[in-house]
Amino acid sequence: MQVIKYPKRKDWNQILSRPENNVEEMAELVNQVFEQVKNDGDKALLKYTSLYDGAEIDSVEVSLEEIEASESLVSQELKNALTVAANNIEKYHSSQLTKPELIETSVGVSCWRKFTPIDKVGLYIPGGSAPLFSTVLMLGIPARIAGCKEVVLCTPPNKDGKINPVILYACKLVGVDRVFRIGGIQAIAAMAFGTETVPHVYKIFGPGNQYVTAAKQEVTKKGVAIDMPAGPSEVLVMADESSVPEFVASDLLSQAEHGADSQVILISWNETLIKDVAIEVEKQLKSLTRKEVASKALANSKLILVGKMEEALALSNLYGPEHLILSVKNEDDLLNGIQNAGSVFIGNYTPESAGDYASGTNHTLPTNGYAKSYSGVGLGSFMKSITFQKISEEGLRNLGPVIEVMATAEQLDAHCNAVSLRLNKIKAKS
Amino acid sequence: MQVIKYPKRKDWNQILSRPENNVEEMAELVNQVFEQVKNDGDKALLKYTSLYDGAEIDSVEVSLEEIEASESLVSQELKNALTVAANNIEKYHSSQLTKPELIETSVGVSCWRKFTPIDKVGLYIPGGSAPLFSTVLMLGIPARIAGCKEVVLCTPPNKDGKINPVILYACKLVGVDRVFRIGGIQAIAAMAFGTETVPHVYKIFGPGNQYVTAAKQEVTKKGVAIDMPAGPSEVLVMADESSVPEFVASDLLSQAEHGADSQVILISWNETLIKDVAIEVEKQLKSLTRKEVASKALANSKLILVGKMEEALALSNLYGPEHLILSVKNEDDLLNGIQNAGSVFIGNYTPESAGDYASGTNHTLPTNGYAKSYSGVGLGSFMKSITFQKISEEGLRNLGPVIEVMATAEQLDAHCNAVSLRLNKIKAKS
Repeated sequence: MQVIKYPKRKDWNQILSRPENNVEEMAELVNQVFEQVKNDGDKALLKYTSLYDGAEIDSVEVSLEEIEASESLVSQELKNALTVAANNIEKYHSSQLTKPELIETSVGVSCWRKFTPIDKVGLYIPGGSAPLFSTVLMLGIPARIAGCKEVVLCTPPNKDGKINPVILYACKLVGVDRVFRIGGIQAIAAMAFGTETVPHVYKIFGPGNQYVTAAKQEVTKKGVAIDMPAGPSEVLVMADESSVPEFVASDLLSQAEHGADSQVILISWNETLIKDVAIEVEKQLKSLTRKEVASKALANSKLILVGKMEEALALSNLYGPEHLILSVKNEDDLLNGIQNAGSVFIGNYTPESAGDYASGTNHTLPTNGYAKSYSGVGLGSFMKSITFQKISEEGLRNLGPVIEVMATAEQLDAHCNAVSLRLNKIKAKS
Repeated sequence: MQVIKYPKRKDWNQILSRPENNVEEMAELVNQVFEQVKNDGDKALLKYTSLYDGAEIDSVEVSLEEIEASESLVSQELKNALTVAANNIEKYHSSQLTKPELIETSVGVSCWRKFTPIDKVGLYIPGGSAPLFSTVLMLGIPARIAGCKEVVLCTPPNKDGKINPVILYACKLVGVDRVFRIGGIQAIAAMAFGTETVPHVYKIFGPGNQYVTAAKQEVTKKGVAIDMPAGPSEVLVMADESSVPEFVASDLLSQAEHGADSQVILISWNETLIKDVAIEVEKQLKSLTRKEVASKALANSKLILVGKMEEALALSNLYGPEHLILSVKNEDDLLNGIQNAGSVFIGNYTPESAGDYASGTNHTLPTNGYAKSYSGVGLGSFMKSITFQKISEEGLRNLGPVIEVMATAEQLDAHCNAVSLRLNKIKAKS
């Protein structure tokens, strides 16, 4: 782990630079797969599942029986844990429901907006050695609260064509409508364009490898929305002498074990703490199953010593971390100054993994600096707002002339006429 | 204008199909300009301004003096109109400010989220014969309410290198920080990557021609957010016998005059109304300055007769119009059923042009069917949310075991350790 002491402001950007992602180079492959799926539908899905996942499957949809059967294949302990997490996620996201509020902007001019569900949404859950069922909860629960009519989920099968039962159980728990055993670019294509079996959706959510990321980016050009652009996961910890090196180390490692490209940064104004954390990281690393992955991530990680708290805050805002952990004595001094971050974890007893799984907040967050312009997934990600307005005769009598002047200045006659004709009618009546 | 009577449901998609846009074909040109602007900065901007706008300019920034001078070049009548519109826009968008609400998802687990401004935003205003100052209000005012620190605006100059004074006056009125006389792909490139003079921004807003649209789409792959994908403007009117054919015709023409590719649709269950509107459209069209443009748009427009109101609603939801006008007797029967639309205008005295200019709602709306998944621009478009959470010792004692079980099942040891270490410490203390 690289220790950087008192970096000069001119070097900050370089110190905080992230690896470039090469989503663009994959555009050609992505478009090839898109064309095949558009032309051959399910047949193309079976072909790519054989090619990329090494699984020979007959049908892409997971049967209701298979989903039902998952219940008996998951331990009661895990089912209980999922229920607790789901309840918290439901409680937090439900609090984001809003009611339309009518605003009378001027006399007789009433405006309001209403959030309505996105009718059809698609969730993507990556494959791999471990079943990422937590993401099923994080995406499926707000989709249900929003009231999305059709919630479908794609996830790649293992070599036997099966989906991990915990994934299926989580789908059942949150009420996903249909599950498809497909992954990669072909899954994104199927949800974007539809096939005989897979319905097309209006918005696609969820993490994935670089192929999935590139495919999601590409569908935005074809009328399908996505949750947000993706990048490697990352954490930035700000800590002072009040923090526990053991805890800080465990948080840094939580992030490092995600992938070799994970970004891990500690900023402190206490040199002893930095030393202690570095020692603890080495110690804890040894016992991790994923220690090789974590080691690679740590090789790019940075422990930054700064002169004072304000500098740490400025560095953090410049970076815009996905996860930000504040392990400091006077957190209130920092909280108001945080401008760019996905999710903030406060105090010694709030590990990032709480938010990853069970506290209730969403774990689908902007990374790669996108926290400067994107929000994490929330209930609103599954809805869109519609604006409404209703103007009375009196309202138009007052506001009409303003519209006429502006429309005329923009040389849009018909826009002006639409008001003038109405004003004439109102005058004729009175 | 094409009249379609009682279309069968299987034909709905075809009837409502929109022209394809060819944003992708421009990717090569866009990337060429991007490279030049990245490499040569301002020099490239001057070159492209000469090439594409036919203007030889020395500097890309509009001076403060020029902005100040605009005030005396705009009529008092127009200034007054802008003030009224600005006040309504401010009132409506201010109502969208929210305060963080703390949710205790379970004992000792507190979660909340806070909306913070996007620090740096860029607004794009197209050039052309008419100055689109209304869009300056629609984007600049919410940017200011949100608290964006740096609000810059790009708009192409005329052949003399000048910007229309009404645009500059609007910039001054809403408090845009810096104005640049550049347009097209080069303007989007400048705001995305920055040059010696133009600061780079985190999010780019505003309408534009197909080049601007393609450039905006492309920057999303390079870490810059955009308001939404763009497409030709469109209106769908639902009307019954209670509507006034003259008014409906003027609303259809308001849309048609925007551009030859504008989409204009009327749906009614009253055949007489459809006939009357068609006659009125022809009559009003004759006197429009932009009648050639409007005629082209009308050639693609559709007057659809359906059997009953419910069908009209279903067609409208399938289409997801940018603007939806409800000119019907029993609007309440329809309002709850509207699922997909950008902005809805209710009743005989609410022309679309009210929302375009002055009622207070935003006129930057999802078109091209994006209303199925995107919201229009609002205050939230200039902000992003940050999630916060704080867990007490008691909270972690309760929730910790749940996290441990889930992290273990996802094979993420370090995630589990981050909790276990803390639970051990809590146990040791008690």
